[in-house]
Amino acid sequence: MVTQEEIEQAHDRIRPYIHRTPVLTNQTLNSLTGAEIYFKCENFQKVGAFKARGGVNAVLQIVQNKEAESLTTHSSGNHAQALAYAARKVGLHAYIIMPRTAPQVKKDAVRGYGAQVIECEPTLEAREEGVQKIIRNKGAILVHPFDNDRIIAGQATAAKELFEDIDITLEALITPVGGGGLLSGTSLSARYFSPTTQVFAGEPEGAADAIYSVKSGTVQKPEFIRTIADGLLTTLSERTLAIIRKHVAEIFLVSDEEIKQAMKLIWERMKIVVEPSSAVVLAVVIRHKELFTGKRVGIILSGGNVDLSKLPF
Amino acid sequence: MVTQEEIEQAHDRIRPYIHRTPVLTNQTLNSLTGAEIYFKCENFQKVGAFKARGGVNAVLQIVQNKEAESLTTHSSGNHAQALAYAARKVGLHAYIIMPRTAPQVKKDAVRGYGAQVIECEPTLEAREEGVQKIIRNKGAILVHPFDNDRIIAGQATAAKELFEDIDITLEALITPVGGGGLLSGTSLSARYFSPTTQVFAGEPEGAADAIYSVKSGTVQKPEFIRTIADGLLTTLSERTLAIIRKHVAEIFLVSDEEIKQAMKLIWERMKIVVEPSSAVVLAVVIRHKELFTGKRVGIILSGGNVDLSKLPF
Repeated sequence: MVTQEEIEQAHDRIRPYIHRTPVLTNQTLNSLTGAEIYFKCENFQKVGAFKARGGVNAVLQIVQNKEAESLTTHSSGNHAQALAYAARKVGLHAYIIMPRTAPQVKKDAVRGYGAQVIECEPTLEAREEGVQKIIRNKGAILVHPFDNDRIIAGQATAAKELFEDIDITLEALITPVGGGGLLSGTSLSARYFSPTTQVFAGEPEGAADAIYSVKSGTVQKPEFIRTIADGLLTTLSERTLAIIRKHVAEIFLVSDEEIKQAMKLIWERMKIVVEPSSAVVLAVVIRHKELFTGKRVGIILSGGNVDLSKLPF
Repeated sequence: MVTQEEIEQAHDRIRPYIHRTPVLTNQTLNSLTGAEIYFKCENFQKVGAFKARGGVNAVLQIVQNKEAESLTTHSSGNHAQALAYAARKVGLHAYIIMPRTAPQVKKDAVRGYGAQVIECEPTLEAREEGVQKIIRNKGAILVHPFDNDRIIAGQATAAKELFEDIDITLEALITPVGGGGLLSGTSLSARYFSPTTQVFAGEPEGAADAIYSVKSGTVQKPEFIRTIADGLLTTLSERTLAIIRKHVAEIFLVSDEEIKQAMKLIWERMKIVVEPSSAVVLAVVIRHKELFTGKRVGIILSGGNVDLSKLPF
């Protein structure tokens, strides 16, 4: 399991390449929820999402240890941009397998960072096959979006900064959960740097796998996938499941309608652009108001990459 | 003309009621324009726009001098919210005359601050008639959106903060221009606090009156009004025209297409919500790249109040 020292080292390593994102508060949203909410704005992060943290941490170590001269991954979006960004910074070549259905704005962004996009069918099988091909043919190293300790240590630094940058102790800290990289990193940061903070997660009803995986103790697939939160479609891995079972207090489901409402509130009231996956967490606080009212609650806004031509409003 | 001391006093007076908004920079937009841009983010201001500054400054003085127990104005949006907000803070009653075509989100916001909204036809005549009626019947005092020294002194504090909060000296500072409250306040702040900074303005082609007013020396009406930048429809007053003629280097026109493109860039790249009127200024820097490239340029993002159900993307 990722240690406190590994998170601290990751933070020192990535610092020159990432933003120390601001923590925002908002009176209207506090009044609405009864909670005192601290928003860690990873939508302002490099590449528009927290994924830059893990990506940079992994790629810097690949270069330092001379593990390969190119890298590859499959990603529906933000992880792809993160690796492309990190690879360019250190002069590695990046091959990114992306489902052809991924938002155009995300494909363009990956290409904009100089990476090579290889499109595939939008199934997990096709994505993994694409990655294996690149590994065989190009000698590239796989950087998995979340089933990777370096990635988890990198993602953990968002919560570490949040703890450092506010004067009070959070009673709760909530992140979205897809593959579990951000959630497991956050829960480890809480354990090491703010042990009285309880960590929770939000998951879309239309991609409900983590909640059942935690209950059953084995990685589950969702019964069905239909959600606006396109960053949260993946299932956990054994690695993230183990951390989440140990350190996360509870996972809450929210509907797409609740996600859209929360997203609209954030855009209208905070005047910031967040993607649906980010809004999942505020949706949790609104739906379970009774649990969070009167509490100091941290929220990690995971990213801000949206296709403006396809808004749900 | 508003003095340096009046701007300094305004700043001290309003400080407890407004946000000291952040100054953001963005590498992508710097690369795109060749300029080094400092965005003063008044979209994060109370009520979502710089208008809170002038509104609070005016209302606090009305209360201190016991000039009236209620106030009124006509406004298509942000000034209305600003006065409603300020009136509530000090316990005055506010009657706001709004064109019935104003965005619903803005009417709702004004009512949300406890003010009484009185709808009228969307003509300047109907708006002014509505205001006169309230003054006669209710004894309310008029707080004009820009033809008012207290308002101008308040709006001037945005530029004052920008000068204080960055380490370098700006070579150019650009605001949008509608009635000219922000522009004249900004140009006076530059004169007093950063005299080597040249002040410019951006105006929509579809509400082009300030540019001709400055050229002719008298307040002109636009030839036609058709623009997405709904905060910039008003003409100058003699008061703002005089200041602008003296202290503003040049006014540039931009098309609605350019405004939309600039707005999309700000949303996508900076991950912040700005209204079309704010985007006018970046559109100027992009259209006149040759003038601003290599320069340190301040931009005042005037506000972030948009109707998310009516986006131009």
